[in-house]
Amino acid sequence: MEGKVVEDQDLGSHNHNHDPCVVEIAMEIHKVESPPKRSSFQKLMNRLKETFFPDDPLRQFKGQPTHQKWILAFQYIFPILQWGPHYNLNLLKSDVVSGLTIASLAIPQGISYAKLANLPPIVGLYSSFVPPLIYAVLGSSRDLAVGPVSIASLLMGSMLRQEVSPAQDPLLFLQLAFTSTFFAGLFQASLGFLRLGFIIDFLSKATLIGFMAGAAIIVSLQQLKALLGITHFTTEMGLVPVMSSVFHNTKEWSWQTILMGFCFLVFLLVARHISIKKPKLFWVSAGAPLLSVIVSTLFVFAFKAQRHSISVIGKLEQGLNPPSWNMLHFHGTHIGLVLKTGLITGIISLTEGIAVGRTFAALKNYQVDGNKEMIAIGVMNVVGSTTSCYITTGAFSRSAVNHNAGAKTAVSNIIMAVTVMVTLLFLMPLFQYTPNLVLGAIIVTAVIGLIDLPAAYQIWKVDKFDFVVMLCAFFGVIFISVQEGLALAVGISIFKMVLQMTRPKTVVLGNIPGTDIFRNRHQYKEAVSIPGFLILSIEAPINFANSNYLNDRILRWILDYEEEEETKRHSGLRFVVLDLSAVSGIDTNGVTFFQELRRVLEKKGVELVLVNPVGEVMEKLQKADGTGDLLQSHALFLTVGEAVSSLFSSMKSVSSSHG
Amino acid sequence: MEGKVVEDQDLGSHNHNHDPCVVEIAMEIHKVESPPKRSSFQKLMNRLKETFFPDDPLRQFKGQPTHQKWILAFQYIFPILQWGPHYNLNLLKSDVVSGLTIASLAIPQGISYAKLANLPPIVGLYSSFVPPLIYAVLGSSRDLAVGPVSIASLLMGSMLRQEVSPAQDPLLFLQLAFTSTFFAGLFQASLGFLRLGFIIDFLSKATLIGFMAGAAIIVSLQQLKALLGITHFTTEMGLVPVMSSVFHNTKEWSWQTILMGFCFLVFLLVARHISIKKPKLFWVSAGAPLLSVIVSTLFVFAFKAQRHSISVIGKLEQGLNPPSWNMLHFHGTHIGLVLKTGLITGIISLTEGIAVGRTFAALKNYQVDGNKEMIAIGVMNVVGSTTSCYITTGAFSRSAVNHNAGAKTAVSNIIMAVTVMVTLLFLMPLFQYTPNLVLGAIIVTAVIGLIDLPAAYQIWKVDKFDFVVMLCAFFGVIFISVQEGLALAVGISIFKMVLQMTRPKTVVLGNIPGTDIFRNRHQYKEAVSIPGFLILSIEAPINFANSNYLNDRILRWILDYEEEEETKRHSGLRFVVLDLSAVSGIDTNGVTFFQELRRVLEKKGVELVLVNPVGEVMEKLQKADGTGDLLQSHALFLTVGEAVSSLFSSMKSVSSSHG
Repeated sequence: MEGKVVEDQDLGSHNHNHDPCVVEIAMEIHKVESPPKRSSFQKLMNRLKETFFPDDPLRQFKGQPTHQKWILAFQYIFPILQWGPHYNLNLLKSDVVSGLTIASLAIPQGISYAKLANLPPIVGLYSSFVPPLIYAVLGSSRDLAVGPVSIASLLMGSMLRQEVSPAQDPLLFLQLAFTSTFFAGLFQASLGFLRLGFIIDFLSKATLIGFMAGAAIIVSLQQLKALLGITHFTTEMGLVPVMSSVFHNTKEWSWQTILMGFCFLVFLLVARHISIKKPKLFWVSAGAPLLSVIVSTLFVFAFKAQRHSISVIGKLEQGLNPPSWNMLHFHGTHIGLVLKTGLITGIISLTEGIAVGRTFAALKNYQVDGNKEMIAIGVMNVVGSTTSCYITTGAFSRSAVNHNAGAKTAVSNIIMAVTVMVTLLFLMPLFQYTPNLVLGAIIVTAVIGLIDLPAAYQIWKVDKFDFVVMLCAFFGVIFISVQEGLALAVGISIFKMVLQMTRPKTVVLGNIPGTDIFRNRHQYKEAVSIPGFLILSIEAPINFANSNYLNDRILRWILDYEEEEETKRHSGLRFVVLDLSAVSGIDTNGVTFFQELRRVLEKKGVELVLVNPVGEVMEKLQKADGTGDLLQSHALFLTVGEAVSSLFSSMKSVSSSHG
Repeated sequence: MEGKVVEDQDLGSHNHNHDPCVVEIAMEIHKVESPPKRSSFQKLMNRLKETFFPDDPLRQFKGQPTHQKWILAFQYIFPILQWGPHYNLNLLKSDVVSGLTIASLAIPQGISYAKLANLPPIVGLYSSFVPPLIYAVLGSSRDLAVGPVSIASLLMGSMLRQEVSPAQDPLLFLQLAFTSTFFAGLFQASLGFLRLGFIIDFLSKATLIGFMAGAAIIVSLQQLKALLGITHFTTEMGLVPVMSSVFHNTKEWSWQTILMGFCFLVFLLVARHISIKKPKLFWVSAGAPLLSVIVSTLFVFAFKAQRHSISVIGKLEQGLNPPSWNMLHFHGTHIGLVLKTGLITGIISLTEGIAVGRTFAALKNYQVDGNKEMIAIGVMNVVGSTTSCYITTGAFSRSAVNHNAGAKTAVSNIIMAVTVMVTLLFLMPLFQYTPNLVLGAIIVTAVIGLIDLPAAYQIWKVDKFDFVVMLCAFFGVIFISVQEGLALAVGISIFKMVLQMTRPKTVVLGNIPGTDIFRNRHQYKEAVSIPGFLILSIEAPINFANSNYLNDRILRWILDYEEEEETKRHSGLRFVVLDLSAVSGIDTNGVTFFQELRRVLEKKGVELVLVNPVGEVMEKLQKADGTGDLLQSHALFLTVGEAVSSLFSSMKSVSSSHG
């Protein structure tokens, strides 16, 4: 395209002479084309592919011979077959170091998190043995350290406690926990298999940051029981009941417990701080929990401190995971609760696992297939639920340690599992005198990292609405309940999205002088309006939820134009030009919207001009518009520039012949 | 902008000479600007205005003196003050004719619809007296004929019957009906007052067409009781129980009733058909119901047909609406049901009233303010509920008759109300012998018009997904229940919208030869790709729900490019150009998406280039992007053409200096 479409000096003055430049452009008008015809079936298949297979997982199978396809398929299902054959001693060395490091973290954390979920401590160790082995075979992340995590433990414990008391009926509680884990796994694997992984995307960054911070506080509050030595502690989770329970039981506070707890907490926090400041010293924070457990256990054992009101874990069984498939309940009164718990803990732990996997994959520049990971995590939990494990996933803090300790492959998970196995077989009696307070301190230190203030500040800076969502999640979790806070934040996020769809932006475009570019007059101060034209850009698909709004809004733009016209200009409105470049789709209400708008404008003597409808919009307008009124060649253009130049010259030729 | 950005012949060949044209363009690059700074508060106010006041209702008050403002305010609240002073005898003549016409329709329909809602027939007449008077004062439509309507009657009857039997406890049932009407009105008025009228937009055209057709069938099925003379009829609504009830009670069928019912049904349908074919003969279908009532009543009276198994209405009270505020229940066991019924019947009747008002306003070229109409209809129902009226709204069929009969103002509603008043005061005994079968025939004839097959076909043609939504509403209503069918369809519509947001389109752009225009390569076959460039347009706001998807999808586009490159071209990918013209907003996840994409591409040696970010996107990227990596001047352009010409020439100068 050559030349300035509308001459700069032409805009203010009412030059009735033919502008040769404009006419020349008008000759060069380009046609809006329809996309190539496809059957409804083809369109459906294409839409399904775009919706469920954005990453095109079958790409690598294309054009391969059959036996190669089989090998690829096996490698796809069992990633260990991909990297296994190339495994060597150097990799093993790194993996042994990192595996032992995360084991030293996994053992105390496993015991602690199981207590957080109101489960016997040993279940936490069972859950650090079988699931990592399964993940090593099925998973595609090289850094994920698998095991129980704080938030899923908290959620499972608090949800199941709504119907069953872990103190009064521990066996039933345990059975429900395994059954929930089974459903969580089933649900996770189905999401992956049905390629519905995008469900976890509905937990936005803001929601997660608010939720995690709230959960961290709830979890820490629960540790006040162990850290203060209170025996009659509330069974509720919220900030208010816990604080009131703490201050109504000041008589139960034990100074020995508080002193010892405080010391270990300070030690762990300092160790954490050192590792944050110098990532090379990752082993300081990684080793601190195990060291604390050993030191505190020895201390209690040596001074018989358990007799001085310091509560200890007590006797633990020895031996590997017993089978638990006979403990799964698929009917009965609690099935609803179990399904709900499985669903929510499943989604939350999936979110953590996938996010962690993606983060470290991005750091090392390899790909993690979200849907495949979901299947791996799901299968891991289903198998786990039959071998006395409760819900597990990839834990952020342990994966970070794993990464820093130089893990190269999932073999580090196998090393960790073997270490846990040795512990289960031979070392369990040693934990008998481990004080609960040290477990509390370990949990507090672990969850404190979930409170991400810099991220919260960044959200405040960038998007105030997201900040509100974050606050809702945070306060919902600490004042209402963990699951309701989460639901609230997700609900608000989706509501915002729907509202955005219901109230799409309409923007008045103006010509950037000396070009054929048209841009938002609000954003580009130099952009000037063209007399007689109202040029609007609509920035959303037009559908049932916004067609009435758009109609109202466009009529208001026309009123605005007329008002401005009275005060400033003399030429009446002749054309409403709608730039549809950003309208990615329409439905039947959208089609009606165009037809009605055209009719309303016609009664005002204004012509409706459409610019650059995309394929789908073009197709639907053609199908709906029997008489072709909307898509006449003098009212349909490829660019705003072409529309304006063509119509401007025709307008001038009409007015000059009349004048 | 002058000259072709990328010379046509330049695209295929790898011409390493400097192209003077390209360089010249590169000089003329335009800057992307940020919108003018506004405080968060200003932005919030602007957003609120766009969301809740798209029609800017206070525009007319601007710049008026105070007393004029008061007059305008009164006229705004009571539209009768606008047109009342100009009322004259000519208008009155038209209004009397149309008022009497709709009265002749309103009286038999009022009785019939009250029976449909399981209410005493006289409540239907009460509801055709008070509400039209109130609407005449508050409403802004000139054509709306107010009174009970079939679908809201059906809904109210079927919902309340879930808890209370109208046969066993008629007084409680009536009280609940009035209370539901009160809440429906309160809810409607609040929607209007809080400017939340867009809630009714969620009932898309497809949903409504499916729902109305299903409801018409359910309503017609209910009339089989009257038309076949069955006495033991099911209290359920679904297709299956009604048909089984009909065929299990064949012994109760009365041939006299069937014969007589059939005759009147044929007569009414023929009258309806005549009026549809010749709209001038509107009085044929308008008068037929009243004529049928008169003829059938005389027939029964003359032949004592009530003794021959023809059931009649029976004795009716006489007199105007008794007050009913003492019958409203604001607590007790049924409050939940009453609130739900009020909400659903309120929304449905509002949808009908607003749609009818808008339709006729568009025909006569005047404006109806949706939110104001909601307040009018809401107040009408609140007042109605205290004067023995159940839910009313603007009925489509009667409004069409009103319009065709030449109604000029809301005075036709007053004339109708006066006629109903006369009937209530003096003519009630005449209905004693009116057979129920004629009421059934009147209802069937009225609701048959709700089945809109041409519109269904149009939806099938234009949008297959909308057609599925329509079928869901239809089959949901006839097989599950009226309210659940509706909920199902609305749920699917919203799900589609959310899915659309989750899976936004990404489109590969190509250059239209000889221009600087870039368009979808799929839609425009002549558009050619530029070697070294992958140009993508994203067609939705980028947020938490789609940022992961977009990331996956863009990486797949890159793989596609590389595959194509291997087979066809030699130049590797250098630039990924994202055209953000259609990205109307981003959130914090969206910001992270850009940052991560940039990092991933950098590792591949590919540069990320952004084109035309709109104001909000620009602002947020600036705020989030501390180091300014994303918005460097060599990676941010105003148009795709400028980006390509600038980068293309720099690429060539680099490669020629290396070559």
